[in-house]
Amino acid sequence: MAYDPDNIFAKILRGDIPCKKVYEDDHVLAFFDIAPKTPMHVLVIPKGAYVSHDDFSANATDAEIAALTRAAGKIARDLGLAESGYRLIANAGENGGQEVPHYHVHILGGAYVGPMVSRR
Amino acid sequence: MAYDPDNIFAKILRGDIPCKKVYEDDHVLAFFDIAPKTPMHVLVIPKGAYVSHDDFSANATDAEIAALTRAAGKIARDLGLAESGYRLIANAGENGGQEVPHYHVHILGGAYVGPMVSRR
Repeated sequence: MAYDPDNIFAKILRGDIPCKKVYEDDHVLAFFDIAPKTPMHVLVIPKGAYVSHDDFSANATDAEIAALTRAAGKIARDLGLAESGYRLIANAGENGGQEVPHYHVHILGGAYVGPMVSRR
Repeated sequence: MAYDPDNIFAKILRGDIPCKKVYEDDHVLAFFDIAPKTPMHVLVIPKGAYVSHDDFSANATDAEIAALTRAAGKIARDLGLAESGYRLIANAGENGGQEVPHYHVHILGGAYVGPMVSRR
């Protein structure tokens, strides 16, 4: 899948759409989800144009990958989630339920997040 | 929290308990979950003794972090999940629902994984 430069996270990265920023460094931007699924719900994205985890894991540099993981940990600590716990989720494609075609990691916390997979 | 060298993943890493191995490299081991929550359910773990995502993100090397992310992507591709999609989950602490105190990432796929957070 080609990267769509008009996806909402690309617009946030360009500053065309505002966000409630939580963290930023050379490789990473993080902001609160506008429709939080738990009391704390943050999205962590690479600044590079990666469509999905498949794309990111194959094509990002070690520095970009390390920056994203370290940022997720730091943000959780800074938000006070390290003690109480949190869940990281990255959705890829249709079976994963990925909605925005720019790789992103959800940090979910502030309450028990629930079972990993709900009974269907 | 101190690392418990008797946790089940430490025993798997030492070869004291068998696993259905999917992938291995210098930094990473991956194997099928013995109680799969979706048709495909793989656990990806660092070989280093990291209790949690908090520990791993703060203390692992860039090479270890990149290896884990790249391995998760490669495993998903090799299992045929890249096209259909998948979900990566890392649980940290109590609110995340972490059960084994050795950092691990779940790869869930083979069917639609469902909503990220179930209604309670």
